[in-house]
Amino acid sequence: MLYHDKRLQYPVRVEKPDPLFARQLQQAIGGIEGEIRVCLQYFFQAWGARAPNNKYRDLLLNTATEEMGHVEMLATAVALNLEKAPLQAEEAASDAIVGAVMGGESARHVMEGMLQRHILSTGLAAFPANSDGVPFDCSHIYASGNIVADMYCNVAAEATGRTLAVRLYNSTNDPGMKDMLHFMIARDTMHQQQWLAVVEELGGAETLPIPNSFDQSKEHTDYSYFLMGTQRDGKKPPSGRFSHGPSLDGRGEFSAGHFEPLGEEPVLGPARPHSGAQREQIDRRMAAE
Amino acid sequence: MLYHDKRLQYPVRVEKPDPLFARQLQQAIGGIEGEIRVCLQYFFQAWGARAPNNKYRDLLLNTATEEMGHVEMLATAVALNLEKAPLQAEEAASDAIVGAVMGGESARHVMEGMLQRHILSTGLAAFPANSDGVPFDCSHIYASGNIVADMYCNVAAEATGRTLAVRLYNSTNDPGMKDMLHFMIARDTMHQQQWLAVVEELGGAETLPIPNSFDQSKEHTDYSYFLMGTQRDGKKPPSGRFSHGPSLDGRGEFSAGHFEPLGEEPVLGPARPHSGAQREQIDRRMAAE
Amino acid sequence: MLYHDKRLQYPVRVEKPDPLFARQLQQAIGGIEGEIRVCLQYFFQAWGARAPNNKYRDLLLNTATEEMGHVEMLATAVALNLEKAPLQAEEAASDAIVGAVMGGESARHVMEGMLQRHILSTGLAAFPANSDGVPFDCSHIYASGNIVADMYCNVAAEATGRTLAVRLYNSTNDPGMKDMLHFMIARDTMHQQQWLAVVEELGGAETLPIPNSFDQSKEHTDYSYFLMGTQRDGKKPPSGRFSHGPSLDGRGEFSAGHFEPLGEEPVLGPARPHSGAQREQIDRRMAAE
Amino acid sequence: MLYHDKRLQYPVRVEKPDPLFARQLQQAIGGIEGEIRVCLQYFFQAWGARAPNNKYRDLLLNTATEEMGHVEMLATAVALNLEKAPLQAEEAASDAIVGAVMGGESARHVMEGMLQRHILSTGLAAFPANSDGVPFDCSHIYASGNIVADMYCNVAAEATGRTLAVRLYNSTNDPGMKDMLHFMIARDTMHQQQWLAVVEELGGAETLPIPNSFDQSKEHTDYSYFLMGTQRDGKKPPSGRFSHGPSLDGRGEFSAGHFEPLGEEPVLGPARPHSGAQREQIDRRMAAE
Amino acid sequence: MLYHDKRLQYPVRVEKPDPLFARQLQQAIGGIEGEIRVCLQYFFQAWGARAPNNKYRDLLLNTATEEMGHVEMLATAVALNLEKAPLQAEEAASDAIVGAVMGGESARHVMEGMLQRHILSTGLAAFPANSDGVPFDCSHIYASGNIVADMYCNVAAEATGRTLAVRLYNSTNDPGMKDMLHFMIARDTMHQQQWLAVVEELGGAETLPIPNSFDQSKEHTDYSYFLMGTQRDGKKPPSGRFSHGPSLDGRGEFSAGHFEPLGEEPVLGPARPHSGAQREQIDRRMAAE
Amino acid sequence: MLYHDKRLQYPVRVEKPDPLFARQLQQAIGGIEGEIRVCLQYFFQAWGARAPNNKYRDLLLNTATEEMGHVEMLATAVALNLEKAPLQAEEAASDAIVGAVMGGESARHVMEGMLQRHILSTGLAAFPANSDGVPFDCSHIYASGNIVADMYCNVAAEATGRTLAVRLYNSTNDPGMKDMLHFMIARDTMHQQQWLAVVEELGGAETLPIPNSFDQSKEHTDYSYFLMGTQRDGKKPPSGRFSHGPSLDGRGEFSAGHFEPLGEEPVLGPARPHSGAQREQIDRRMAAE
Repeated sequence: MLYHDKRLQYPVRVEKPDPLFARQLQQAIGGIEGEIRVCLQYFFQAWGARAPNNKYRDLLLNTATEEMGHVEMLATAVALNLEKAPLQAEEAASDAIVGAVMGGESARHVMEGMLQRHILSTGLAAFPANSDGVPFDCSHIYASGNIVADMYCNVAAEATGRTLAVRLYNSTNDPGMKDMLHFMIARDTMHQQQWLAVVEELGGAETLPIPNSFDQSKEHTDYSYFLMGTQRDGKKPPSGRFSHGPSLDGRGEFSAGHFEPLGEEPVLGPARPHSGAQREQIDRRMAAE
Repeated sequence: MLYHDKRLQYPVRVEKPDPLFARQLQQAIGGIEGEIRVCLQYFFQAWGARAPNNKYRDLLLNTATEEMGHVEMLATAVALNLEKAPLQAEEAASDAIVGAVMGGESARHVMEGMLQRHILSTGLAAFPANSDGVPFDCSHIYASGNIVADMYCNVAAEATGRTLAVRLYNSTNDPGMKDMLHFMIARDTMHQQQWLAVVEELGGAETLPIPNSFDQSKEHTDYSYFLMGTQRDGKKPPSGRFSHGPSLDGRGEFSAGHFEPLGEEPVLGPARPHSGAQREQIDRRMAAE
Repeated sequence: MLYHDKRLQYPVRVEKPDPLFARQLQQAIGGIEGEIRVCLQYFFQAWGARAPNNKYRDLLLNTATEEMGHVEMLATAVALNLEKAPLQAEEAASDAIVGAVMGGESARHVMEGMLQRHILSTGLAAFPANSDGVPFDCSHIYASGNIVADMYCNVAAEATGRTLAVRLYNSTNDPGMKDMLHFMIARDTMHQQQWLAVVEELGGAETLPIPNSFDQSKEHTDYSYFLMGTQRDGKKPPSGRFSHGPSLDGRGEFSAGHFEPLGEEPVLGPARPHSGAQREQIDRRMAAE
Repeated sequence: MLYHDKRLQYPVRVEKPDPLFARQLQQAIGGIEGEIRVCLQYFFQAWGARAPNNKYRDLLLNTATEEMGHVEMLATAVALNLEKAPLQAEEAASDAIVGAVMGGESARHVMEGMLQRHILSTGLAAFPANSDGVPFDCSHIYASGNIVADMYCNVAAEATGRTLAVRLYNSTNDPGMKDMLHFMIARDTMHQQQWLAVVEELGGAETLPIPNSFDQSKEHTDYSYFLMGTQRDGKKPPSGRFSHGPSLDGRGEFSAGHFEPLGEEPVLGPARPHSGAQREQIDRRMAAE
Repeated sequence: MLYHDKRLQYPVRVEKPDPLFARQLQQAIGGIEGEIRVCLQYFFQAWGARAPNNKYRDLLLNTATEEMGHVEMLATAVALNLEKAPLQAEEAASDAIVGAVMGGESARHVMEGMLQRHILSTGLAAFPANSDGVPFDCSHIYASGNIVADMYCNVAAEATGRTLAVRLYNSTNDPGMKDMLHFMIARDTMHQQQWLAVVEELGGAETLPIPNSFDQSKEHTDYSYFLMGTQRDGKKPPSGRFSHGPSLDGRGEFSAGHFEPLGEEPVLGPARPHSGAQREQIDRRMAAE
Repeated sequence: MLYHDKRLQYPVRVEKPDPLFARQLQQAIGGIEGEIRVCLQYFFQAWGARAPNNKYRDLLLNTATEEMGHVEMLATAVALNLEKAPLQAEEAASDAIVGAVMGGESARHVMEGMLQRHILSTGLAAFPANSDGVPFDCSHIYASGNIVADMYCNVAAEATGRTLAVRLYNSTNDPGMKDMLHFMIARDTMHQQQWLAVVEELGGAETLPIPNSFDQSKEHTDYSYFLMGTQRDGKKPPSGRFSHGPSLDGRGEFSAGHFEPLGEEPVLGPARPHSGAQREQIDRRMAAE
């Protein structure tokens, strides 16, 4: 079960509230590269982890719990960045609060660039949606029941997550926000390492192909290490580490070439009666020239 | 631009149509581990690839195009598996077609296990949704603008994709379906290899942390290789490759420990007038004991 | 504004409650071919209708209002079909209510084929989702601001809607349900006619191309009536009414042929610094063989 | 069934069309606190109302019908606010219509703050989405089959709905819009009252706990009135009406305290063969230090 | 920030694994009445709570944290109920595991009633979706910035949540599952009480209308306590606590009556040139009889 | 299967990159009127086409393949329009790149009008979402199994698609973008023609009502050509081609009139015990005056 501490994992302060940056931070909360995603992803991977022991379950629980603390930090940062946000488009240009902070921009301009739900639905606070207002959808919680597949899902999440955090860092010049993000970027560095280390611990190249519990002799091994060229002019696909030489798992040899269809044109035939098709699809020859 | 060949990439045949398997195959079409996803993911990565040359753009285009052929194969397989599906729950038990094929199950039973849209909306054909009927949603197309982050997204997709294909293979005993899947499983093997080979070609550990274009001195390096323990009893997180020894990128040393909050309890203060809050939130002391 | 009458537009009765048919009826409520969709579609088209007079606004309001009555009938039908549904998988096989009605099926079997939300979330009543449980999503309300485009959206909705109603009719043998549906199918017949009649009234072929307010000389007229062949072997596309002879709008002549790319391979070039890309994408030559 | 009157429930006029306010009004149409939601929610609650008499069914039908009239008013208000909206970013600054209305803002600025679909997809009219463009999704129609649970869902909807309406009122200074909203806010006042009055009529505290048809002796009554503290430092949760004294339903006494886990660490054990897991999850000891 | 304890909040055990019940439990995880929803709802309400003090922020944090422990319990229960689930439709009827457990049902039957993603995507574990497989969508996290509106959202969530838990309790006869649920039902009892107690503490009827910070003299008070009848025959709406007598907030008197439109038929007029409308909408009289 | 050519179907060039236009172009990629939709719609219609011959399957494949080339062109156009987009709100006003291109607008203003994901998630490239950032959702792929219903779905898609393309054309003054769009508008002209030509070839009015395989004598023919008036004052609906004279299919005569309910007020009766309802709904008289 979970416990909480009222204090934040790392200090969050905003020197110059900026509603546009509040909007951008939403991507790190409710975006597909965001923290709700990794938090729930690690929790569900942990809760469904079937294995001879609970080692990786434990590891996942530790980091899932950490990530919920990141959502909290970001939600706090959004609320602080919205503190001086305008609530009325025709607010006097001389309005002390907005005018001073937004560099002279009119309230209307500031509002135009905001998520309207920050004004209308949340009372100037964060919500679990991304930077364009699309709610987070839990189909993005990847938990496959295969530990190595899961680890690569996690590396993918942390790689896009750190890319996002770096873009946010580049986008602001508020010292408080830069400080918060320079902690979060460091955590993403570790999490990338951490999940890749689990892959290494589980055997590195030995983990391939995923799932490695499937008897590879049952797959069509002629095509297991073949780079399929689908260029219409019949030219080969580009050449690289992936087109020749030993495969990464050491079980085959890469090759590459143009590919011709091995199947035929499918013929489904007429529709069944009472299936809702047009009469012509069912029992008569369709128009043909 | 794209061109088509009427023939399928690989033969698709079904000996014993099975509406339940038709439903399961939908996961490989419109599931998050499915083929529409990888097809569009590779296309969008290609179309947005900014780099000194077009090499990986080309590679991505070759494989994206291949994947569209997989969607076609699976859609054909779904239609073939639905060929004898019942359209009426009270169909006579003796109905030759259904009875013979479904091993004596009643039409009602077969229908209960089907996606109803296979009966009501598609005319016994595939549609871009998963095995429980949820439409594919393009938020699952990951294309970050960072080539290595994208490669890991692709490995994740192919790892979960091959896991799915193996489960489908295990779930059927139709020789035609097993043949189709043993080709697809081989392709997933290659695609896992292929994207990992791009990572190796781009430098392997040198690609870390992703993005590697961010000056790592700007991150809070005290926490870049630290495994954060969040167990309430203060015990350390589990120990492994990820908790001590050199980091995978060779730039640090792993460590692990319990973590105490570095921040404070946040205080947002009263709500602003005219912000839609309750009076008590704005200008008076709230109930306190 | 709207008013209601407590009575249903047409009688709804169920002789033999069937939870599987309740599930199927959901498609006509919350499916993309369903009645919530046409109801809201016609309302939004009406409310946004800009034109010299309100004639089509009025027409749309009449039919939108009718459709809300269809949702009501279907919701009632769902509730009636759920009346005897099992609430417990291990209910005694001898349970009078379920056993008698479901033809001897066990409660577990009946439950397996049901939408679980009919049991768990609605208290044995309808909800605005389709027959596989996916909630209706208002992105399916098509209202383009172009009256002819809207009419074709409406014909499409009524064509797929009547196809669905026919499939439901074929799927049940309950006399009450067949009676209700034979009314609804008639209404769909009329609605198909009605929207096509608006197109005819607005000029038939003269309405093309939609929107007809765009000066056609600004489009690339070489390709306005050309059937583009994209077969890889360079063969022509199929021949028919659409490949030769005068175009339907009388403004051109159909032709058909294979198509070769007119554009070039796009080159986006290196990524910008500080854009979150990998270093290799930005400022150095990427790996190339 | 439903009937319509061409006239609006209350006058809608706009003195100074404002595309940004058009966008904000969308929240009251297609937002989760909006009018489509309450309209459909009350309809579905009515259509599924199982009770000894139809009293609350009738009440719900009356108000559901009223709400559809609110959607109509809001959709009209959106269309009117979009009347002068720019269609081209580079429109001359001197353009009479836009320039005069928007207070000298450039067309580009105005467009940047608009929902692009107001320009591109609807022909300057409303659509069933919220103020950031997210389509309304009917999963927000709460109709549980429990009349008191439903009433609280309705109070929640009208409480957030009136909060939204107040924020919209505060956000505009157009006299016509303020007039429309001052009617709508009054209606929300009544609807809050109305649903709470049903709760009172049904017994007030006697309705608790919901559902009150469940034999409360079957629940773990040690924890039925206990405020669970989950603070890591073991301190008690805050004190208030909810932490001591008689419970609101008069059936217990509130208490509060720190909570320690009553369960054990779960052990799921190894994965099953042929389940798509990694080999190491199935039959061998996983890496352990 | 958050901390975790490996132990579950309350014991979770399953005597007779049942894949259908696993599917039903999903509703309590990822359904709109489920635990992810309340967990995140209380967290976001806490993180955005603006008030003179942090009392309710603290209260919300305590309970949000508790709820995450419920998700964990339910996810564990799903995994345990899936332990013996079939992976292959044609598994021998004599298969010891499935046969014994499922009361002689064939593997095919059991699979037909399952969420296919439990077989294909999760490795026999829970995922954040509901009992029909629809992923949880965070638009259901209600956090309005108005403390009383939020409390009613919470009561609504706990009222539908306890209704769901009671239905799950009624649906199973597994002693372990009944034990877990009888704890959860008790917690829902408390949470209903708890949020209503906050309303009472904040003033009870004084909190109305929500938000109470809006000057009620600005609303159209003629309609603030008026039950609007929308029956087409002009009859009054039903009579009750809500139709006469003093209003609940003591500020008015309920009345009820039939309502006639106060507005006019809206006339939007012709479409603008270059707006994508048909020619006839823009500059000529439309067809009129 | 599919093949690709590296070259674009038609040249794509941007003279003056404009991030706002990049946002607008997204509607043509991932909007419901966009190119991903028609591409997948035609593919799924082709793959499920049941008919005596493959003629329309072939036709659909040719055009589906063409459409994928349009997505590619648009994605390229988005990337080119984002080339100079600001990455930092406080970028110096004198910044050569942004300043020169955006007509002197500040970086902050430009960013406010952008999709934030263009900055934060894609690395200045296209993604499969619409112009307000909502991801494309494959429920919009209409493929009904009825060839004529499908054709009308296609006409609807191309009619709204060309309307969108015209609006985009009107919205930009970049010569490169105008050139690309004048090609695409021409293609939409053809596609409208093409699908209507299939309807004509299949019999024109003979195809009605859709599906024409349903025995029309089974529908309630009294209402098959009757325009139902739902105006509360009992007045007739508007008069036109749809209200009198022969029906379009030549099988009936249009008529019009006011409609009175044919059904009764539904009475569902009390809730069942153990169904989660309130006690009052189940076994006692509910409050009634």
